[in-house]
Amino acid sequence: MRIEVVGIGAGDPDQITVQAVAVLGRVDVVFLLDKADAAGELMALREALISRYAPQARIVRGADPDRDRVSPGYTAAVDDWRTRRADVCAEMVGELGPDEVGAFLVWGDPSLYDSVIAVLEDVRSRGTDFELGVVPGISSVSALAAKHATTLNQVGGAVQITTGRRLASGWPDGVDDLVVMLDAQCAFLAYPDAEIRWGAYVSTPDEILISGRVSEVGERIRREREAARASKGWIMDTYLLRRPR
Amino acid sequence: MRIEVVGIGAGDPDQITVQAVAVLGRVDVVFLLDKADAAGELMALREALISRYAPQARIVRGADPDRDRVSPGYTAAVDDWRTRRADVCAEMVGELGPDEVGAFLVWGDPSLYDSVIAVLEDVRSRGTDFELGVVPGISSVSALAAKHATTLNQVGGAVQITTGRRLASGWPDGVDDLVVMLDAQCAFLAYPDAEIRWGAYVSTPDEILISGRVSEVGERIRREREAARASKGWIMDTYLLRRPR
Ligand SMILES: C[S@@+](CC[C@H](N)C(=O)[O-])C[C@H]1O[C@@H](n2cnc3c(N)ncnc32)[C@H](O)[C@@H]1O
Ligand SMILES: C[S@@+](CC[C@H](N)C(=O)[O-])C[C@H]1O[C@@H](n2cnc3c(N)ncnc32)[C@H](O)[C@@H]1O
Repeated sequence: MRIEVVGIGAGDPDQITVQAVAVLGRVDVVFLLDKADAAGELMALREALISRYAPQARIVRGADPDRDRVSPGYTAAVDDWRTRRADVCAEMVGELGPDEVGAFLVWGDPSLYDSVIAVLEDVRSRGTDFELGVVPGISSVSALAAKHATTLNQVGGAVQITTGRRLASGWPDGVDDLVVMLDAQCAFLAYPDAEIRWGAYVSTPDEILISGRVSEVGERIRREREAARASKGWIMDTYLLRRPR
Repeated sequence: MRIEVVGIGAGDPDQITVQAVAVLGRVDVVFLLDKADAAGELMALREALISRYAPQARIVRGADPDRDRVSPGYTAAVDDWRTRRADVCAEMVGELGPDEVGAFLVWGDPSLYDSVIAVLEDVRSRGTDFELGVVPGISSVSALAAKHATTLNQVGGAVQITTGRRLASGWPDGVDDLVVMLDAQCAFLAYPDAEIRWGAYVSTPDEILISGRVSEVGERIRREREAARASKGWIMDTYLLRRPR
């Protein structure tokens, strides 16, 4: 039994690697965790990838448990959600025959703010044994940098990848270049002097890119973000934030 | 005139994206910056990619100026090297016809510790006008995390991507998870309690992976690193370093 966690890139179906295509072409099963509130478009993209690259695979679906977003203890809430998710995944993985290979498709790169690897380790620690492989993918961070034709780091410098929640409690010490993910609050607005390179739905047909000084473009980003989120019902956005030295 | 900066992944020729393959299949010219001291294997990999994915392209070569590694001012040395590199690139780009598309191949992802985007901006600022596109690639960071089947960040946490030089002057403030690149000095040895996930030549046939507590595996990494570097003549290694909370 072998499970592959396959990064599929951040939105463009052509952002998948040749390696991922080869792996998907050989798997027996594709596991799909369906979120009740999932954006239909994201599901459709995954299903298009499956019919293009893994037409031979049977699909095993599971209902992704809701994450308790209102819980005050962020880490605790994530842990509880992971346990429930592990229950669901253990059942899904149980559908795999002893000589079969299954795949989970992960948005972007599996190494960034994704829980599938951890959940599969939970499943394994409960006694289901399988080999685990990970196929890297283009993260939304690489996709965003490419669209802005910029590097993440300055010469010899460091870059920190962080969350909106963390940025809201202050600019991290000791680093001038940030990549911010999972920001529902536009935490960048607190830094009018910073340079922002923002992108929503990067690498998809709805892509929006805005860059400039926060004092000049920050409000526009907030408005366009809100309008897009309202009209599409969901948003995924990321940004680079550079503090003037 | 259009120039594409194409990420080719960190070593495995299959780590290239379908998008990069499509772009390479259409370009008129591939620009190759030849380093005098370049590892023959790395050149061979690039040339294999070109004959596989861009057989139609003509190849324009330029001699990459040596970087002054002994200079005390790191930023200044890099800036000077960039200027000389821009001279070389401006000449190479001059070979491109007005309706042609050219490509530079970049190791890993162009957004991380790579100077091609900056050099092309220098070329543009000197008056050569062209459109610039960037095609993201799998970075050595994503490749390393995949091989260790790990995420970069802990739940809701931040991760900093930094250099060996910076780590040698102290663990950065406010972050427990580091990715360290460009470390010729094994700066991790100063942190015996940290967990390391190290990889050299990741995604190539010579890949070496070692993980564990620095106090237990640090010396072995140093030795294996030195032995590999001595026998191959070059090394590329990266690691994740996690501080116990
Ligand atoms: C749960 S994380 C998953 C990240 C993913 N593993 C990756 O490598 O990009 C979701 C966050 O990724 C970012 N994101 C993912 N896809 C994006 C896209 N196409 N455009 C902009 N941001 C995106 C957003 O910050 C979003 O809140
Ligand atoms: C000049 S930087 C270029 C990084 C590249 N743009 C990327 O995205 O990986 C070179 C550094 O990248 C890391 N690196 C690149 N390829 C690697 C590989 N295959 N295995 C391990 N480390 C690698 C090493 O830390 C090396 O010192």
